[in-house]
Amino acid sequence: MHQNQQKFAVLSGGVGGAKLVLGLAQILPARNLQVIANTGDDFDHLGLPVSPDIDTLIYTLAGLANPDTGWGRHDESWNFMAALSELGGADWFRLGDRDLAMHVRRRDLLAGGHSLSAATRELARGLGVQTAILPMSDAPVRTHIDTADGELGFQDYFVRLRAQPVAQAIRYRGADKANAATDALTALQRPGLTGIIISPSNPWLSIAPILAVTGIESALSDCPVPVTAVSPIVAGKAIKGPTAKLMQELGITAGVVGIAEYYKNIIDGLVIDTQDAEHRTTIERMGISVAMTDTIMNDLTDKTRLAEFVAGFTAELRAAS
Amino acid sequence: MHQNQQKFAVLSGGVGGAKLVLGLAQILPARNLQVIANTGDDFDHLGLPVSPDIDTLIYTLAGLANPDTGWGRHDESWNFMAALSELGGADWFRLGDRDLAMHVRRRDLLAGGHSLSAATRELARGLGVQTAILPMSDAPVRTHIDTADGELGFQDYFVRLRAQPVAQAIRYRGADKANAATDALTALQRPGLTGIIISPSNPWLSIAPILAVTGIESALSDCPVPVTAVSPIVAGKAIKGPTAKLMQELGITAGVVGIAEYYKNIIDGLVIDTQDAEHRTTIERMGISVAMTDTIMNDLTDKTRLAEFVAGFTAELRAAS
Repeated sequence: MHQNQQKFAVLSGGVGGAKLVLGLAQILPARNLQVIANTGDDFDHLGLPVSPDIDTLIYTLAGLANPDTGWGRHDESWNFMAALSELGGADWFRLGDRDLAMHVRRRDLLAGGHSLSAATRELARGLGVQTAILPMSDAPVRTHIDTADGELGFQDYFVRLRAQPVAQAIRYRGADKANAATDALTALQRPGLTGIIISPSNPWLSIAPILAVTGIESALSDCPVPVTAVSPIVAGKAIKGPTAKLMQELGITAGVVGIAEYYKNIIDGLVIDTQDAEHRTTIERMGISVAMTDTIMNDLTDKTRLAEFVAGFTAELRAAS
Repeated sequence: MHQNQQKFAVLSGGVGGAKLVLGLAQILPARNLQVIANTGDDFDHLGLPVSPDIDTLIYTLAGLANPDTGWGRHDESWNFMAALSELGGADWFRLGDRDLAMHVRRRDLLAGGHSLSAATRELARGLGVQTAILPMSDAPVRTHIDTADGELGFQDYFVRLRAQPVAQAIRYRGADKANAATDALTALQRPGLTGIIISPSNPWLSIAPILAVTGIESALSDCPVPVTAVSPIVAGKAIKGPTAKLMQELGITAGVVGIAEYYKNIIDGLVIDTQDAEHRTTIERMGISVAMTDTIMNDLTDKTRLAEFVAGFTAELRAAS
């Protein structure tokens, strides 16, 4: 099979991005797929380093993800949380009994001198995940939201306060001082790379922090292979409740044209949904190649089919260049 | 009921001591019972502050203790531990899902500026325990064992290495620099106190660390009320496997006479089991009053009965003084 020879680096956030990553993992040998994960949503909770997007990627690839919530593990138990709640501990961020082990073990590895990259490698290996999950940086980068109530950490704003405060701006705290992790940069500069794929995660919340760390955007500019993105938005509708509110308050036009605008200096190609066909010409006028398909991924067949489509489109762009 | 007017301060370690404390809690109003807990077995594990004896006391009084293990909670689940093990984390110290909340919450409270005394008060309150559980000190004291393989933390020696290394000495690290906690000292100096009871915990492992912190032993000497101890040993047999090995290697004669020798400068009275009647005279010759009864506590009736006996004996000593 031809695609087995292809090699991709993928920039990804959590849920939406992880779906495409899972599809790519079906069509590529593990060593040919490397995923650079957003760590902007990371935070310290109850003394534990929580990395939501890394964990969603690992759980998804390990077949342990909870499809209903988009976070945590399936077949989870909540006895820790119930007991913590009884003791007056913070219970707004739900940590399942099994999921908790991930954060405790990560703390342990970091305290033992592991970088976040090395710790993530250990955690993924422990759950049998062979695809490389690479944190964008080993230094802390924290997505914050400036709101009418002051600056808030992302989880604090999004989970604890349910995105109620009116948002004014997004900040990627620490990004200016954070270098891209060596493994992440190496993945982007890998010899024989077919292309770089930007997964269908929210550009402003999940991909922007990756692009903000020192070294990533220049690696994308310098790379000799095509960069393609997959739109996470279909007919302006794929963004859910609180995220839609956030986008609106920030004046972001969350449609495929807005995404194309946002990515136009970085990408060579954009995969959009057939429902957005009307925007094709507008996007192509920005100098972006467009490919159209059904981008909604409900089951593994959808994910695999979209992965094949994106891989094929990227390979075509490479052949044409 | 007369005993409701009595007030006691109790020095206690974990399992054995907690049994008598539970008995005392049956016969006294909560405000008349204050328990000074050994923290020499405390340790930092996976970044969490674990206080085994405090937790055993709280769980016992909350009706949550696991009677089979002597530690942790009954009706416990182990999903965290299984997941941690899968991730290559340390699994030699078993932390149940519900029990884990105790340590996470304690870390949270300590990180928030609470003393161990204040944190313990919060944790006990959270589980509905009204009896005051008072850590012997807010400063760290750590029981270490000098062994043929070097100096080891107590849990490391006892749990991880199953007391295999040959023991040479016990040290109470930090005790010389640790002051007794204010609440603990206040309990010993309480106006109207009937007496101070040393619970049937292992003298060398559980009571000695309490006595080693600055202020406790002088408070016992200075107090105008009787101090009575309850022997944890019956016919030389109540000490279990690894503890018996430890005692033997340290040259400690673990019988009621050895206990009387160890406590003789501190106590006024000693409660021994009727099976140890032959040693009564030897102990009385040390200037210690002896009371004999069945000291084995299998069920709540045994615990309550022994508590009544010890309380009565202590009150008699006070009346006679």
